[in-house]
Amino acid sequence: MSILGTVTEPVLLLDEKKCRNNIQRMADKARRNNIRLRPHFKTHQSRQIAEWFREAGINCITVSSLRMATFFAEQGWNDITVAFPVNTLEHERINRLARNLVLNLMVADLEAARLLSATVRYPVQVWIKVDSGSRRTGVLPEDHKTVDSILEVINSSAHLSFKGFLTHAGQSYNCRSRDEIMNVHRKTVTLMTDLAGRYRSAFPGLEISTGDTPTCSVAEDFTMVDEIRPGNFVFYDLTQALVTSCEKRDIAVAVACPVVARHADRNEIILYGGGIHFSKESLDPGNGKKIFGELVRMSDNGWSEPLEGCYVSKLSQEHGTLKVTDEVFSQISVGEVVAILPVHSCMTANLLAGYITLSGKRFEYFDGKKEYYM
Amino acid sequence: MSILGTVTEPVLLLDEKKCRNNIQRMADKARRNNIRLRPHFKTHQSRQIAEWFREAGINCITVSSLRMATFFAEQGWNDITVAFPVNTLEHERINRLARNLVLNLMVADLEAARLLSATVRYPVQVWIKVDSGSRRTGVLPEDHKTVDSILEVINSSAHLSFKGFLTHAGQSYNCRSRDEIMNVHRKTVTLMTDLAGRYRSAFPGLEISTGDTPTCSVAEDFTMVDEIRPGNFVFYDLTQALVTSCEKRDIAVAVACPVVARHADRNEIILYGGGIHFSKESLDPGNGKKIFGELVRMSDNGWSEPLEGCYVSKLSQEHGTLKVTDEVFSQISVGEVVAILPVHSCMTANLLAGYITLSGKRFEYFDGKKEYYM
Repeated sequence: MSILGTVTEPVLLLDEKKCRNNIQRMADKARRNNIRLRPHFKTHQSRQIAEWFREAGINCITVSSLRMATFFAEQGWNDITVAFPVNTLEHERINRLARNLVLNLMVADLEAARLLSATVRYPVQVWIKVDSGSRRTGVLPEDHKTVDSILEVINSSAHLSFKGFLTHAGQSYNCRSRDEIMNVHRKTVTLMTDLAGRYRSAFPGLEISTGDTPTCSVAEDFTMVDEIRPGNFVFYDLTQALVTSCEKRDIAVAVACPVVARHADRNEIILYGGGIHFSKESLDPGNGKKIFGELVRMSDNGWSEPLEGCYVSKLSQEHGTLKVTDEVFSQISVGEVVAILPVHSCMTANLLAGYITLSGKRFEYFDGKKEYYM
Repeated sequence: MSILGTVTEPVLLLDEKKCRNNIQRMADKARRNNIRLRPHFKTHQSRQIAEWFREAGINCITVSSLRMATFFAEQGWNDITVAFPVNTLEHERINRLARNLVLNLMVADLEAARLLSATVRYPVQVWIKVDSGSRRTGVLPEDHKTVDSILEVINSSAHLSFKGFLTHAGQSYNCRSRDEIMNVHRKTVTLMTDLAGRYRSAFPGLEISTGDTPTCSVAEDFTMVDEIRPGNFVFYDLTQALVTSCEKRDIAVAVACPVVARHADRNEIILYGGGIHFSKESLDPGNGKKIFGELVRMSDNGWSEPLEGCYVSKLSQEHGTLKVTDEVFSQISVGEVVAILPVHSCMTANLLAGYITLSGKRFEYFDGKKEYYM
């Protein structure tokens, strides 16, 4: 019997083999290039999946919040980068972490650097966040004045030290071919190398850290880069497949959804599985359709590639609408459970808040948001 | 000092006065119409807010999952409707609930009715879900054959009894004026009354239940309706304001977000607050802009109406981009906390998973998803 036979509510299925393969492939690539893989753990937020990274030789990690850093510190991870513009309101948490482990923080703003310097009491390594083209945040690479001012703040602090320049080339998510991704990769590396070159005489040990899953998945050559921080690759998803970072067969998670109604007049199947399970992210594969997930067929040891023409076309809070072909419509009954590949696995894992592996192991998900209110 | 002075991470602020006013207004309207208000608790999922409903005289509720029903049953609620197509895979939970309280389930499919009948061992009242125009799910009102077949299943069961016809006129969310909402309301009531009329001689006690927040907020006359089940009105949000269900000053929740970076070249402020806090729902108020939230100004006893031209224009996983005017840009600093009205309060509450009231009370949020993996 497939794992679906044990499922009664929307849950996140995890294919351990695919996941471990994704981890191993990235770890091997980093090793071949002699660079540090500092995987982003915000995607999985799982104590147990973290151990699969440890088994692949990983010993330093990236997270997206100080609370998440605290969680993984408790699991024995002792070299952590928080790859989000430092939130100095959490200075108490920063100091607790910095006292106990190698803490690397990211600064995207001069005022934030000043506030950090004013509150930090233990050693912290500082990355300057560079905007390499995504225009989300970070110092523009031509803005040497701001870089200089941030470096002045770092240099005059007893606890801060400059680690290097960090970027996340999020514009790679707009790519639709490996050539386009390689173009983003080359431009990003050139821009980061030029910037680092300007400061290398003053800071001979400075490093370059890049991070997005598309360039890390597609590029083979990481000359001039010291560290990569991809996260999503641990699971991949339909967005990454569209971007050409992965094949759909690499996707390591699927949402199991009970079937609660069928509408023969429009070949639609109503799933227990909505925006609070998948997230409301959608993708348009170029044909004007909005896609919130794709149907796969379960077998005893995993799932198939997506079934042609069968996709989640609408989501409300708890309902999902699965559009299917005539043939598939006749094969799916109310009371069974189907499996859907997600559009954005980070968001879906955050919402489903745990995993069931194909062999039935249950993994918890961290997400410390409830802690705020206790 | 405003409550923002105590906030260090993204949290959901709750204005108790606005929230209690929203509850009272709907309770008064139901009382004037001599109909039952069975509020949908999926929006707030809070033990404490539930008590505010109790204080307003409410004693029966709606939820969206059997797990949520179980949670509120433990808080002493003993007349509960699960307004989601019955998921018969959870028959054990159904039977546990049905043994202990008045359980009302919703059937949208003949096969689901059969599966329910085959597994139920305690009295359950069954609503037939009618699709009154949203085309999400439910029996089409002209499909008397399916209604008859479902009624046959109910009648031949020792435990099931027919409660009536239930609908959710979700198409009201496409409205942009109170006239349009009234039009949806009148059409829905007519359609439900006609259908009920056909079955009233066989089932003299059958009821009509309607539910969406827009029609329940705008309509004043509920003749022929027995029960209303709105949920979102407890908080409202920017979507409801756009639909004209409420004024922006009625919105009872706001997301508090630390400011982590500023970009003077483009009047953008980077917030700690992204898709995992707000959800990725956006709205387009008709000018082609995507809006994920609107900035308000906090005072000692609440927040202002949204500041003209200041809105969240982009969200990634943890980052929010707040576009502001020149004037507002100069007034907001890194290291402070700003408050943002959400686009869809149900989704935002689900993600932020708790509340802090303006007087500093902390309320937990249910969301049983983590329980799956324990």
